Amino acid sequence: MHSFLDLADHSGEEIAALLALAKRLEQHPEPQALAGKILGLLFFNPSLRTMSSFQAGMARLGGSSFVISAGNGTWQLETRRGAIMDGVAAEHVREGVPVLSHYCDVLGIRAFAGGTNLNEDLAETSFREMTSLVAKPVINMESAVNHPCQALADWKTMDDLGLPQRAKFVLSWVNHPRALPLAVPSATVHMAAMRGMDVVVLRPEGFALPDAIMAKARAAADSAGGTLRETSNRAEALAGAQVVYAKEWGCTSHYGNADVDRELRSKLIDWCVRDSWFEHTLADCRLMHCLPVRRNVAVADEVLDSARSVVQREAYNRMTVQMAVLHSLLSGRQT
Amino acid sequence: MHSFLDLADHSGEEIAALLALAKRLEQHPEPQALAGKILGLLFFNPSLRTMSSFQAGMARLGGSSFVISAGNGTWQLETRRGAIMDGVAAEHVREGVPVLSHYCDVLGIRAFAGGTNLNEDLAETSFREMTSLVAKPVINMESAVNHPCQALADWKTMDDLGLPQRAKFVLSWVNHPRALPLAVPSATVHMAAMRGMDVVVLRPEGFALPDAIMAKARAAADSAGGTLRETSNRAEALAGAQVVYAKEWGCTSHYGNADVDRELRSKLIDWCVRDSWFEHTLADCRLMHCLPVRRNVAVADEVLDSARSVVQREAYNRMTVQMAVLHSLLSGRQT
Amino acid sequence: MHSFLDLADHSGEEIAALLALAKRLEQHPEPQALAGKILGLLFFNPSLRTMSSFQAGMARLGGSSFVISAGNGTWQLETRRGAIMDGVAAEHVREGVPVLSHYCDVLGIRAFAGGTNLNEDLAETSFREMTSLVAKPVINMESAVNHPCQALADWKTMDDLGLPQRAKFVLSWVNHPRALPLAVPSATVHMAAMRGMDVVVLRPEGFALPDAIMAKARAAADSAGGTLRETSNRAEALAGAQVVYAKEWGCTSHYGNADVDRELRSKLIDWCVRDSWFEHTLADCRLMHCLPVRRNVAVADEVLDSARSVVQREAYNRMTVQMAVLHSLLSGRQT
Repeated sequence: MHSFLDLADHSGEEIAALLALAKRLEQHPEPQALAGKILGLLFFNPSLRTMSSFQAGMARLGGSSFVISAGNGTWQLETRRGAIMDGVAAEHVREGVPVLSHYCDVLGIRAFAGGTNLNEDLAETSFREMTSLVAKPVINMESAVNHPCQALADWKTMDDLGLPQRAKFVLSWVNHPRALPLAVPSATVHMAAMRGMDVVVLRPEGFALPDAIMAKARAAADSAGGTLRETSNRAEALAGAQVVYAKEWGCTSHYGNADVDRELRSKLIDWCVRDSWFEHTLADCRLMHCLPVRRNVAVADEVLDSARSVVQREAYNRMTVQMAVLHSLLSGRQT
Repeated sequence: MHSFLDLADHSGEEIAALLALAKRLEQHPEPQALAGKILGLLFFNPSLRTMSSFQAGMARLGGSSFVISAGNGTWQLETRRGAIMDGVAAEHVREGVPVLSHYCDVLGIRAFAGGTNLNEDLAETSFREMTSLVAKPVINMESAVNHPCQALADWKTMDDLGLPQRAKFVLSWVNHPRALPLAVPSATVHMAAMRGMDVVVLRPEGFALPDAIMAKARAAADSAGGTLRETSNRAEALAGAQVVYAKEWGCTSHYGNADVDRELRSKLIDWCVRDSWFEHTLADCRLMHCLPVRRNVAVADEVLDSARSVVQREAYNRMTVQMAVLHSLLSGRQT
Repeated sequence: MHSFLDLADHSGEEIAALLALAKRLEQHPEPQALAGKILGLLFFNPSLRTMSSFQAGMARLGGSSFVISAGNGTWQLETRRGAIMDGVAAEHVREGVPVLSHYCDVLGIRAFAGGTNLNEDLAETSFREMTSLVAKPVINMESAVNHPCQALADWKTMDDLGLPQRAKFVLSWVNHPRALPLAVPSATVHMAAMRGMDVVVLRPEGFALPDAIMAKARAAADSAGGTLRETSNRAEALAGAQVVYAKEWGCTSHYGNADVDRELRSKLIDWCVRDSWFEHTLADCRLMHCLPVRRNVAVADEVLDSARSVVQREAYNRMTVQMAVLHSLLSGRQT
């Protein structure tokens, strides 16, 4: 494995091997496996889980990390090709990203969607530009429309809980004060499809996932023997669900239009997951969420504080699967 | 020892053992004692000494650390129970704090007082809420009305200097541009009382320490054979003093009222420790302060730059006592 | 070697030994050389290369680091002697800097020029004040008019590339949206002179390097057998050049006057290095820059993306030479 950018880059067997390695390292720690190795972490956006779980996981394998947060103790970084840099950004990623790669053995990059041009975001233009500049292994710590570390952690969480492969997995849009990127819904729907589940995307009108995202997930479902469909009918979607995966994202019918987005979501305040959502799900239906979550806007206290919430297990598994990724990328490699 | 939240949770014998361990580690370093262990550091407020001394101390014992600063590269964190999170905070401590605890073996938390509701601050409502969410050892890196790491460092500093137990210890209010929390004065008066000293709290009208803080310190004094009293008479307080411990705190007669606080302190600009304060103290009277200190507002250059200032020794001892705390919490424990 | 503050503090032989050590550590890593040692990094200004390369280099030698960024998770720090600290700064460097030195074995400090009083900046008043407070080894991570780590990295880069000693080295002023400090031009011209090169400072009227900086470089040139001169004639300067070292700095004829500076540089937009600059240089003339660089303001894309640009090698060598400095300062020393 050279880099970890997208679950879709890897076969089902490779994913199974990563999950097995994560499990093995949980049971049989290898505190010196990555001794002397260095992980660079470059953030263009805030982080809590990613920043701490990567440092902790690297340390548990004997390695070290450094953190660079653009604009926070470090220069603002320019990403536009050909820019005349007379504004606020003091450095271009064409310099900054390769520079950081010299100092580390593997580089993690977080760069959220621009959120204005859907095609550019779907094409991962900015993220691909950055990864193309690095000769060393790269880890996607969340790009415009992907978050493979979260997806792998969620997969392991469902395995840990013994959830069957063919269970009904409902990714439900939930409300939020403003538009959020498509990275987690896109990665989640693909992951659940790749796991062979019966995936339903539940979302109000105006928030359908873009065709490219659905097509990628559908290909994964076909290959794994699962199914994928969309609906705006909540009752029908939730009936018999094994998992409700709540996630916030922005209006896609008018992508990047904050006014339309605000207008649409102002009428959707009942899209906050409550106990009543579970009346016709399986009795042991789980609530999943990648965090951070807006309590009582996206998910109610009564659900987050109940036994069906597995958000803490998901967060814990960020560390376990990332340790497997780091181990796969670096163990045995020459520095 | 499971956690380190308050000196009052520990017997005099336990404190003596911690101080002895700090001394032993100074003389006989154990650079591998905490190899493979991870310290998480969560800051809701700025830090210089705490942030650096914990990382350095952990490294000197062979362990690793990660730092999360709320709102600084990380989301703003919500602390109110039941909040409808449609404002600026993206994550609730009910998620964020347990998540961080999964990644580390011990979690340090710094969360200053709200500064508006005295009873809530005295009850440590917010801090207790957070520590209740963590199954692993927790270290109080300064809460609303406590700062046990500073208190223990100050205790060791007085021991290092050979200051007698029954010496006169004067905690004196000093001026500052605005109201500061009660954490250090509260921890200091309790620590000096627990050490069995003759403790005098010197403060102007309007700045008396709350009854609950005085009662807690008085109980410690009674138990240790020391004494405790308050006064606003500076000359009388300073006469014969072995230690002047300068500290800034906010108006308590109108807690949280910035206007009254400003009005009161505008008439108290002579509450800046100068050489003249030491005319009737013991000749070798020491000036202590937890830092950071506003030079020439709280303490004059002439005192801070003199031989009686032991502020650097106090800061140095932050690391030595915290190493003892980390060692006690983690050494021999299974990860 | 006790500290690393200025190349001028060291003989040519000492510099040669540092460069040889850097080379040796590249070829024969010593992953345990600084095990148990701690590097403190104090930043008053933003950083990308310095922050990451020091942490990575220290880790590659087995040591640990902590980072403190004034005003960014930490208090604002006061530097003025005798200040009445009733403003925004909560702590004076007279406390903060010695405190940090207690926790580490070597302390790196970055503190840019004030930019208003040329004589104070040339005298390194503020930086010298800070280093005078520390009993342990100190590393200059960029001060008012110096940046010895960058200079040493650039020296090694020229050696790596096999550039002859007596080659023509042109330090050229280039444009930037605002005045930048004299640290890099000052360190660069001195370094190239100390390496025995034929150094030409090319700059428009109003941007001559101060006499003290030129005199220091001239002494180094005399001692090493090189030459040094200034000109505003670009064609004449570039003819036969082996190296064009592009750098931005502020107007020196009216130091600290932002209005004059802006007025002057508004007429100098052609001071952006383009392919045409290399028409009469040596064919294999190199473009050097310390980074960060404003693309298409200071240096055009066509040059930065060409084979003559060695800016990545310079950045990589920040780590290699800093490892040599850390090794020299700490290896064999008692903690």
